[in-house]
Amino acid sequence: MSDARLESLRALLPELRLLVEPADLEHYGRDWTRRWTPAPMAVALPASVEDVQAIVCWANAKGVGIVPSGGRTGLSGGAVAANGELVLSLERMHKVLAFDAVDRTLTVQAGIPLQRVQETAREHGLQYPVDFASRGSCSIGGNIATNAGGIRVVRYGNTREWVAGVKLVTGSGELMELGRGLVKDSSGYDLRHLAIASEGTLGIIVEATLKLTDPPSPSNVMLLALPSFEALMQVFAAFRARLQLQAFEFLTDVALKHVLAHGEPPPFEQAHPYYVVTEFASDEASEAEVLAAFGQCLEQGLVSDGVISASDAQAAQLWRLREAITESLARYVPYKNDVSVRISAMPAFLAETQALLGREYPQLEVVWFGHIGDGNLHINILKPDAMAQDAFVADCERVTKLLAQVLEAHGGSISAEHGIGLVKKPYLSCTRSAAEIAAMRGIKAALDPNGIMNPGKLFDA
Amino acid sequence: MSDARLESLRALLPELRLLVEPADLEHYGRDWTRRWTPAPMAVALPASVEDVQAIVCWANAKGVGIVPSGGRTGLSGGAVAANGELVLSLERMHKVLAFDAVDRTLTVQAGIPLQRVQETAREHGLQYPVDFASRGSCSIGGNIATNAGGIRVVRYGNTREWVAGVKLVTGSGELMELGRGLVKDSSGYDLRHLAIASEGTLGIIVEATLKLTDPPSPSNVMLLALPSFEALMQVFAAFRARLQLQAFEFLTDVALKHVLAHGEPPPFEQAHPYYVVTEFASDEASEAEVLAAFGQCLEQGLVSDGVISASDAQAAQLWRLREAITESLARYVPYKNDVSVRISAMPAFLAETQALLGREYPQLEVVWFGHIGDGNLHINILKPDAMAQDAFVADCERVTKLLAQVLEAHGGSISAEHGIGLVKKPYLSCTRSAAEIAAMRGIKAALDPNGIMNPGKLFDA
Repeated sequence: MSDARLESLRALLPELRLLVEPADLEHYGRDWTRRWTPAPMAVALPASVEDVQAIVCWANAKGVGIVPSGGRTGLSGGAVAANGELVLSLERMHKVLAFDAVDRTLTVQAGIPLQRVQETAREHGLQYPVDFASRGSCSIGGNIATNAGGIRVVRYGNTREWVAGVKLVTGSGELMELGRGLVKDSSGYDLRHLAIASEGTLGIIVEATLKLTDPPSPSNVMLLALPSFEALMQVFAAFRARLQLQAFEFLTDVALKHVLAHGEPPPFEQAHPYYVVTEFASDEASEAEVLAAFGQCLEQGLVSDGVISASDAQAAQLWRLREAITESLARYVPYKNDVSVRISAMPAFLAETQALLGREYPQLEVVWFGHIGDGNLHINILKPDAMAQDAFVADCERVTKLLAQVLEAHGGSISAEHGIGLVKKPYLSCTRSAAEIAAMRGIKAALDPNGIMNPGKLFDA
Repeated sequence: MSDARLESLRALLPELRLLVEPADLEHYGRDWTRRWTPAPMAVALPASVEDVQAIVCWANAKGVGIVPSGGRTGLSGGAVAANGELVLSLERMHKVLAFDAVDRTLTVQAGIPLQRVQETAREHGLQYPVDFASRGSCSIGGNIATNAGGIRVVRYGNTREWVAGVKLVTGSGELMELGRGLVKDSSGYDLRHLAIASEGTLGIIVEATLKLTDPPSPSNVMLLALPSFEALMQVFAAFRARLQLQAFEFLTDVALKHVLAHGEPPPFEQAHPYYVVTEFASDEASEAEVLAAFGQCLEQGLVSDGVISASDAQAAQLWRLREAITESLARYVPYKNDVSVRISAMPAFLAETQALLGREYPQLEVVWFGHIGDGNLHINILKPDAMAQDAFVADCERVTKLLAQVLEAHGGSISAEHGIGLVKKPYLSCTRSAAEIAAMRGIKAALDPNGIMNPGKLFDA
């Protein structure tokens, strides 16, 4: 590449690792969505905050867009670089910087994978409780940039709750230390919360101070078989009324079928239409409550079968039935919806959505699963092998427009935890008002005046 | 008042309650600070969101500043109207709008007092856990606008954690429904968190959806007597290591002296230099841990005496020793500092601050108390009767400048929970960087383009 702009970056930062090989551009230019053709100008792998700031200043001067890049496990195209942007990968900035036992915080560089954060917390006798299946690949910076949720939200909340501080290099190249680990700080607008879920459109998260908590008490996992969709919210209510739930995850028969085809052993002798994976403390009192809840649901015909883990290995095995869904579907290049409503709005929303999808996707396989305890549903539409990708996506987009209207009517969100990125951008206005989007544009202009940060993501500036 | 602007407001909203009597202007034009002379143009008491929007549109057209007004219990001058502004009181908008048992939320109008929120939650078998001494007078809107903290933060966090949704009428008159009770929503910038702690400078909070939680388990209160300031953080560490603390509050001998003079009975036969009020579950396991922690501290010479509540009445009595401080000091028109640092930074910060205040206030009485478990200290300087108010404030401001430097060196905040308002404005730049303040100005411009919302508070636009 003989791009004069790149030459000027090399001259500015001779030590900067800069990749320009086609294979690298392809690898770093896309995320787990596979809808866009990667076409970044180059990939920069800075090793320090100062390098990041210098790159941002250069990008402002040269009018180059920057796509911040973590583990690129995103599902909304937020890390896609398809228009000659510079990918700024945090991959080399993956250190644990500090642990503080008094504050119970862990300070890390943004490129560290979630799993290493979890492991480091455990080494200190504590827990970082945000968790989801891509833990080994995703980066904490990306988790924060999308306010990642996952399988423990019903108990511990989203990533947002666990961020005590963020260092952000803004679109204008300023380094802001936001939050700074303070429990209490009422000194003006909370820019830390603004950085969280901003999807790289305001700046680059370079460091984070994460809150840790007590390690979880030993837990058991239960798999429930449900005869009907209508039973789902009632089972949730029955269990939640008796127990502090650590997780309450739902999947359909179709989802389980793919997981079993992927190699997991079947949990029950016969198939059931719906399943729930739930987790709770393994103390005596909790187990008694679980059995009582199960008995009550069985009596009312809300569950048809159930199994409780008798060992950690079996607990892990039951979790695999839920966690392996995404990878078992990957070969179908599914079109993904990630939607949420208030928990109280779930029954009506579920009924309406089930009817909508049955009506609109008569020929397509629809795989449902999700975090019922958070009001969050994942709806995956599988592409038939014979169908062209473009025609498939076009059909899914047509239905997503209808789904967005249902969501709007129920006060829901078009993106519960994946972010808006490129995939959900056409539907943002069903979830956020015109005034809110206008305010977001104004806020972006304040932090990224030249619009160089992740251009085209979330909204058009 | 024959102000033509007011006449136009009357014409626009003939039903609007509008106060213009001098006594009303004085009453509604100030908060618990007594430093500014109230001088609003009038006081509007709208009864609906539509009225609030209409008033904001009028204010934009006429170039009138609006001061949103809740219970006016603030300590930073955030609700002061001293420059011909229109006070917009939420006093008449004090209804409970909805309770949702499934979502565990309570939706209220912003003018409702905190205590009524707490009581309503209790009536539904749940808890709204934010709490502080002004609960009967302060409004939930004001709590949100300052991200109020209080005495339960060590256990439950600040107001921010309990706000599932906010309706905000922005400075441009738009009604935004932010958060909307969703557990998960990753659809762009979190404007709800931006509204929280914005001190009325972005818009008027007109409604809130609050999260509720399980009622607290029965608790006991313990009062500890400490021989030295240095012991404080060690006692905190010893108790926190063994117990889930509900509160951990600190006060000095001087603070207790004022409370006793105010009529409370003395807790111990003799006086001690420092005291701690702590609260914890009253189950057997917790009580055993408390006794163990107390024994350990006694052995190490970190505590000299202690008393555990034997009844709810005694628990309330022990709490009064902490909660009555502010009212017992009121007659001295104290100058208040409300500062925070990371908990780990407390020992060094406390030592340095104690030395600073001893050096700079040799003739003035300094009353310390605070929420040690959150890294939050309140430092009240009492005005000698013989000293003129202006000279007193000037002397305190001189020392606050030095204190702000100490805070800056320790990564602390000039306002932990009172907000910046007018009182802390000169010191904002010790806590927030120039780039952050510039970003805040840009954000304000996006939501309040004409700068009519609480002008002059927080920063000069």
